[in-house]
Amino acid sequence: MPRLPRRARRPRVQPGAAPGTVQRPQSESPVEMRVIVYDGERFIDERVHDLQRAFELHEQPGITWIDVVSPDVTTLNALGARFELHPLTLEDIADGRQRSKLEAYRDHLFIVVRAVRPDPDVLFRNHQVALFVGKGFVISVRDERHGQFEPVRERLQVARGRIRERGADYLGYALLDSVVDHYLPVVDVVTEQIETLADDLLGPSTESLVAQVQDARRALGRLRRLSMPLKDVVESMHREPVVLADETRLFLRDCIDNAVTILDSVEQLREMATHVMDAHMALVNHRMNEVMKVLTVMSAVFIPLSFIAGLYGMNFDGGVSPYNMPELRWTYGYPFALSLMTLLAGTLVFYFYRRGWLGRSAAADVTPIAARDDKA
Amino acid sequence: MPRLPRRARRPRVQPGAAPGTVQRPQSESPVEMRVIVYDGERFIDERVHDLQRAFELHEQPGITWIDVVSPDVTTLNALGARFELHPLTLEDIADGRQRSKLEAYRDHLFIVVRAVRPDPDVLFRNHQVALFVGKGFVISVRDERHGQFEPVRERLQVARGRIRERGADYLGYALLDSVVDHYLPVVDVVTEQIETLADDLLGPSTESLVAQVQDARRALGRLRRLSMPLKDVVESMHREPVVLADETRLFLRDCIDNAVTILDSVEQLREMATHVMDAHMALVNHRMNEVMKVLTVMSAVFIPLSFIAGLYGMNFDGGVSPYNMPELRWTYGYPFALSLMTLLAGTLVFYFYRRGWLGRSAAADVTPIAARDDKA
Amino acid sequence: MPRLPRRARRPRVQPGAAPGTVQRPQSESPVEMRVIVYDGERFIDERVHDLQRAFELHEQPGITWIDVVSPDVTTLNALGARFELHPLTLEDIADGRQRSKLEAYRDHLFIVVRAVRPDPDVLFRNHQVALFVGKGFVISVRDERHGQFEPVRERLQVARGRIRERGADYLGYALLDSVVDHYLPVVDVVTEQIETLADDLLGPSTESLVAQVQDARRALGRLRRLSMPLKDVVESMHREPVVLADETRLFLRDCIDNAVTILDSVEQLREMATHVMDAHMALVNHRMNEVMKVLTVMSAVFIPLSFIAGLYGMNFDGGVSPYNMPELRWTYGYPFALSLMTLLAGTLVFYFYRRGWLGRSAAADVTPIAARDDKA
Amino acid sequence: MPRLPRRARRPRVQPGAAPGTVQRPQSESPVEMRVIVYDGERFIDERVHDLQRAFELHEQPGITWIDVVSPDVTTLNALGARFELHPLTLEDIADGRQRSKLEAYRDHLFIVVRAVRPDPDVLFRNHQVALFVGKGFVISVRDERHGQFEPVRERLQVARGRIRERGADYLGYALLDSVVDHYLPVVDVVTEQIETLADDLLGPSTESLVAQVQDARRALGRLRRLSMPLKDVVESMHREPVVLADETRLFLRDCIDNAVTILDSVEQLREMATHVMDAHMALVNHRMNEVMKVLTVMSAVFIPLSFIAGLYGMNFDGGVSPYNMPELRWTYGYPFALSLMTLLAGTLVFYFYRRGWLGRSAAADVTPIAARDDKA
Amino acid sequence: MPRLPRRARRPRVQPGAAPGTVQRPQSESPVEMRVIVYDGERFIDERVHDLQRAFELHEQPGITWIDVVSPDVTTLNALGARFELHPLTLEDIADGRQRSKLEAYRDHLFIVVRAVRPDPDVLFRNHQVALFVGKGFVISVRDERHGQFEPVRERLQVARGRIRERGADYLGYALLDSVVDHYLPVVDVVTEQIETLADDLLGPSTESLVAQVQDARRALGRLRRLSMPLKDVVESMHREPVVLADETRLFLRDCIDNAVTILDSVEQLREMATHVMDAHMALVNHRMNEVMKVLTVMSAVFIPLSFIAGLYGMNFDGGVSPYNMPELRWTYGYPFALSLMTLLAGTLVFYFYRRGWLGRSAAADVTPIAARDDKA
Repeated sequence: MPRLPRRARRPRVQPGAAPGTVQRPQSESPVEMRVIVYDGERFIDERVHDLQRAFELHEQPGITWIDVVSPDVTTLNALGARFELHPLTLEDIADGRQRSKLEAYRDHLFIVVRAVRPDPDVLFRNHQVALFVGKGFVISVRDERHGQFEPVRERLQVARGRIRERGADYLGYALLDSVVDHYLPVVDVVTEQIETLADDLLGPSTESLVAQVQDARRALGRLRRLSMPLKDVVESMHREPVVLADETRLFLRDCIDNAVTILDSVEQLREMATHVMDAHMALVNHRMNEVMKVLTVMSAVFIPLSFIAGLYGMNFDGGVSPYNMPELRWTYGYPFALSLMTLLAGTLVFYFYRRGWLGRSAAADVTPIAARDDKA
Repeated sequence: MPRLPRRARRPRVQPGAAPGTVQRPQSESPVEMRVIVYDGERFIDERVHDLQRAFELHEQPGITWIDVVSPDVTTLNALGARFELHPLTLEDIADGRQRSKLEAYRDHLFIVVRAVRPDPDVLFRNHQVALFVGKGFVISVRDERHGQFEPVRERLQVARGRIRERGADYLGYALLDSVVDHYLPVVDVVTEQIETLADDLLGPSTESLVAQVQDARRALGRLRRLSMPLKDVVESMHREPVVLADETRLFLRDCIDNAVTILDSVEQLREMATHVMDAHMALVNHRMNEVMKVLTVMSAVFIPLSFIAGLYGMNFDGGVSPYNMPELRWTYGYPFALSLMTLLAGTLVFYFYRRGWLGRSAAADVTPIAARDDKA
Repeated sequence: MPRLPRRARRPRVQPGAAPGTVQRPQSESPVEMRVIVYDGERFIDERVHDLQRAFELHEQPGITWIDVVSPDVTTLNALGARFELHPLTLEDIADGRQRSKLEAYRDHLFIVVRAVRPDPDVLFRNHQVALFVGKGFVISVRDERHGQFEPVRERLQVARGRIRERGADYLGYALLDSVVDHYLPVVDVVTEQIETLADDLLGPSTESLVAQVQDARRALGRLRRLSMPLKDVVESMHREPVVLADETRLFLRDCIDNAVTILDSVEQLREMATHVMDAHMALVNHRMNEVMKVLTVMSAVFIPLSFIAGLYGMNFDGGVSPYNMPELRWTYGYPFALSLMTLLAGTLVFYFYRRGWLGRSAAADVTPIAARDDKA
Repeated sequence: MPRLPRRARRPRVQPGAAPGTVQRPQSESPVEMRVIVYDGERFIDERVHDLQRAFELHEQPGITWIDVVSPDVTTLNALGARFELHPLTLEDIADGRQRSKLEAYRDHLFIVVRAVRPDPDVLFRNHQVALFVGKGFVISVRDERHGQFEPVRERLQVARGRIRERGADYLGYALLDSVVDHYLPVVDVVTEQIETLADDLLGPSTESLVAQVQDARRALGRLRRLSMPLKDVVESMHREPVVLADETRLFLRDCIDNAVTILDSVEQLREMATHVMDAHMALVNHRMNEVMKVLTVMSAVFIPLSFIAGLYGMNFDGGVSPYNMPELRWTYGYPFALSLMTLLAGTLVFYFYRRGWLGRSAAADVTPIAARDDKA
Repeated sequence: MPRLPRRARRPRVQPGAAPGTVQRPQSESPVEMRVIVYDGERFIDERVHDLQRAFELHEQPGITWIDVVSPDVTTLNALGARFELHPLTLEDIADGRQRSKLEAYRDHLFIVVRAVRPDPDVLFRNHQVALFVGKGFVISVRDERHGQFEPVRERLQVARGRIRERGADYLGYALLDSVVDHYLPVVDVVTEQIETLADDLLGPSTESLVAQVQDARRALGRLRRLSMPLKDVVESMHREPVVLADETRLFLRDCIDNAVTILDSVEQLREMATHVMDAHMALVNHRMNEVMKVLTVMSAVFIPLSFIAGLYGMNFDGGVSPYNMPELRWTYGYPFALSLMTLLAGTLVFYFYRRGWLGRSAAADVTPIAARDDKA
């Protein structure tokens, strides 16, 4: 999994700039706009290229949904002027890096949430979705077109659907619910990744595994920082006294459930990642121990033997002095040396066997402690 | 203990689907239904195969308890229509993966809890139990039949039992209490596992132990995520103003106690698991230290000796030059070399003894610190 | 310190049993009962063996204190019937494993707390004490007789003592305060143990030390889980509006102080235990480092020397070819080899000295970092 | 990155000194003062060197902003006397090390915040900014001149700007918002540093890297301790009932968003720093393991071979006894010894290959565990 | 730094003793008493040795401050009787180990705080200071005389000082503020110690350093447990409705600031201590790695060379068989052996160089991971 490229260091709004200044980096994708007007009976769905046409459609009776994708500053300002939106909300939309939040204005709600979608490279990506929910209209402004709202539009097309019978607040809820629902596949993707890593980390250790864990934890951190304010937004909307019908509030309760479940899963994964790292460290240490035991046993057994061999390889001249290495001239010198070596090796092997360093199960070494419990 | 198989990746409700859509994977087990109608005097207990019969029994005077196991969508919808249940509640039931929660509707409570039972393979399994508690009726919808409600049914059979004298709210409490009570054996099973691991981890280290600890911590995580909302549900029910009689509320206080105790035990086990891993790491490090000391002492003592032996094994030709290894021709050359080796070995052994590397109790090495306290 | 034996796995109340079922394992110790009746002037203190006698004494004017130790089910039921106690409270008492809690009933308070006493084997043990505090009577039900209430009884005997002048609520407070006070010696015992371990862990590492730390942390966990609800109970009693006189409430404020201090000490000890383990790990690693340095220096210095010695121990035949080891036949061959070895050893020793691996203070190696601060 | 020099240990206000004592270390930089008076139409901007002149300007109609940089005690006292500021606020300003806070006085708000700016040496530095926001005047007292307020002054110069139309509360908000905005570049600098370190720590380990991580975590700690009270200050101002106009409150909501985002980023970075250290430790351990394996394999393979070579290098005299090393005189002695060595080496290499110690991917060793999942 | 001697295990008040029992260990220092009576005009300051004299002075008009150092039980009881102090407050004072707290009685406040002072041996020591603040009088009872209240007394001597104009509540505030102020030098001392350790821990590792860190963390723990209730006390006093004048409350706000700053610094130091230990562990591991690399490279290069040397040191008799070590008799045998060794050593050195184990910067080994980011 390639790492998430560093956050594009697009200069933020100039510190100290007048609040409400609508600044926006040049977008590569063209503005897309779609206007849907509906009530229990009628249903108009039209792609528009001109805000003027959108405003005309809004004149029609029924509920208007204006869906704008990657708007430029001009479009934003025109929308703001027409629907009397606060300049600060437009600044938030333009910035594109707003934390999820809900703000209540006198006659409409302003909701910013971050939508997510799975991405094979960096697990998931997120973009900003802003909603204005007012009396008789909903405006959605998105930074990317990803089909998140398609199911809602399809439900709107059904002639006698529940969504057609209700107000703009229900449409607003439906869109928010759709954003929340799309977190679930992302949670599944991250869960899959963490579980795969959990299995891999019990296997052989490699450098890239460690880096992958770090990437996954980072993705989890990002997901948590996205989910927490999302839940707050849904809860704030549930508490909102003015715009919402009671029935819609009942549905929001369900949406809160989803948000809580998402957050819950993320917390579980975070905890799991920590345990996985713990287990990995324990395994690496355990294996180091095994390696060290092999080294120690091999060295400790053969080093004394080699010493004895070296001893009798010395060239003290027996011809000169009877004190010089008489063993070399002893009839049974060689068998004696071999026996000495065998005895020494046997003793050492027996010692290491008793300490449990031979074989993987080091039973004898720890019996005293393991047995403690039985006596207690 | 085999690991819990990965969560079956059954597709969740399609993101963006209309809320209240009752979707349900095909169940393998047939629907089971049982209807009990009782009051202080009468008691009817009948297995029914047809919802129509259940509704007829509900017409009878007294309190009706409809117990449904693994219902299909048709059954759910029929129940919903008859008792005016909210579509969202039916969706929750059908999903089968709902987090525990309580929702109050105008004239009934909707409770979803997750019931648990011990399982030898993965410590414990959980399934969903939903309860509707209304005026004069209780509907329980379960995903598995596991005898959790048998004791309640038996108490209902007793002619003059307290439960027969009271309302549907008391029956609802009794069923919820039964679910909570069944967490206790699961807590016992997990406790047993953690304590066994705690003992094992003080014994010899093996790779599978580490994996088992990770599995147990995961089970603990699952149990905690189940217990926390369960406690919230019982507390919410205790606060519920409409449906409950005051006397039932008193009993719920006791049920809260149980839920708190369960959560408490889980927290204790989590903490214990952490300490156990700490202790395990300390032990592994300690043992590595022991291994290293043996290696070091053996190597450090014999390597210089081998060097001396190697030195006098060199073939410099004494016949050519008097400077070449006169020791070899010295009368006491060999005894001298042996003495040199003995002296060297003795010095090194003494040095390691002073540093406390010989024997397991390394007393001398650390005396200065241990003694510090006495001087303070 | 032997480990706490596993919690006796006495079967809990059957899951799903009717709440309020008074079940109790057969107790080995006989029921003991003592009734004290007093007011400002009179004082009766009588051991009774028959509840009927206790009820007769209660008829007397003044405040009645019935102290029952390890009662059987019959006794509990008789008490419950006489004083109109709720069946759930009797179930709690019989269970003997209740978490500390306070429950207010219409005309009396029901308090369950866990009393502790030091125990040389497992640091401390706990048992259950239940109190009913009503108008004119206090009933205490204990699972063990341990003299915890002796001081209160002695104060009651004093003719003009404050406790004689006040109501049953003050007596209830005095008994609760006595239970809280007895936590202090237990905290002292655990503190002593942790501090001893803290010193020992800076000394030589042993396997049993690690196990002892784990036991102590477990005891701390138990103590914390006992102290937290205890504090809650005292605070609940302080808030209790009905039964308590204002003056008694003032005394309870002091009792809360004690409970907070206990909890505070436990938290401090928990933190200390964590730091102690940190320090221990740091020490073990430090010592491993020392061991490794010795091994490395010894090996690295002597291995090249041994190689040179081995080189000149080769048996290439100088008589056959002038290219074969002419050094061996050179006049100064041996002195040359010795000088080469000395030079090599000196170079290596100097290198290790510069890296600070000789001697315990490894100054040279880290100077650059340590000095950084001065330049900043 | 050089480390932050130790906090200059300038003596704090003498403990026990009368509260409200205005003490101030001698400042090196001269006092700077600038007075701006404006309303919708007029705009005066004047550097003054004499407070008397400032007070004259304040007499003018419109809103007065007095901006003072590094004032001495005399100036502070004169300001305090003229605007009836509480002595405690002057003491706070003079101290220069005040935690961010907001205090409401009868007719003005007193705000102290800590402004930050990136600094190549220690990541960032902070200094104190105090604001008095009253009816018709704002006084800002800063310890350093850093152009933080320049953008606000420029917006004031624009004839028909929003800021010119509004009251002193809006100016106060604008200045506070400017301070908050300047945290963003600092967060970016710290993020850059942490991410660089995160990459470096996956590379080769060096001592200075560890020190750099510690420095960065310290900077993060400082930043967190600055951001938390900053957010509290903005929230307090938002709640402030008296001085603020409703419209200004709306803008403050946006400022709270910024403060929350800053705090959020800091928390994320703290978490990331922890994960990075975890990953670093895992890597270092992994590499140690690799090193140990090489050492172990090399030693374990060659030590027995060397022993055999040493064995046949012994000088037992075959001429004296037929038992003494007959192999040396056997026709195929040498080929036999070579074969023995080859066989031994082969066996050992095969054994290490099976345990997965050869090559970096140690597959065979861990198969049993990795495969466990498939069987479950 | 010597460690703090274990808490003197003076027996606490006997568990179960009557609350309000004034018990006190025999103090070594004599009782000291000083009475100050003042109002705007008059000022009396007198050391008294007899409480009777103190009570006489209290009869004088003006505000009375009775300052008592290490009183005995008799003095406490006499004070209690004269000023109608609650017995529980006297018990608290006598105990001398009370946690900081504030208790409001009908007509006076009772404040216990723990005062601290730096101490070269154990960083800091603490003792108890109790204050009664009533209408027209303040009683301070201290366990040690340390000049903490001297500055207040000096300010009282000044004829027209603010403190002389105000009531007893202001005096009470001034004394409490003085206690809080004296925490600042202690925080400075602990900060100094932690920062010194932070630097030292990046230097060479020693056992005593680890013990010193543990001591410092313990001191930090103590300081935190003292500062937290201290802040609570100041906040409680700020909320206190009866005794305090509004103006005094304003000054208390400042005192709260100080208490929060103290707590803040302590938290920062705790966090820093944790990071410092992390960094230390990372360094120790890093250094172990360096040591291991040297050992491995030296061993791995020379062990095969020594083996070859050993091989040609074998004594197979070439005279007996032409198969026995013909190399020894080959003209270029020796040069061939030397070349083989050189080649082998070169290969190994090259291999280790490629893995980055030569030199401290192990660049080559980790390039693949470090470079990953560039490709992403």
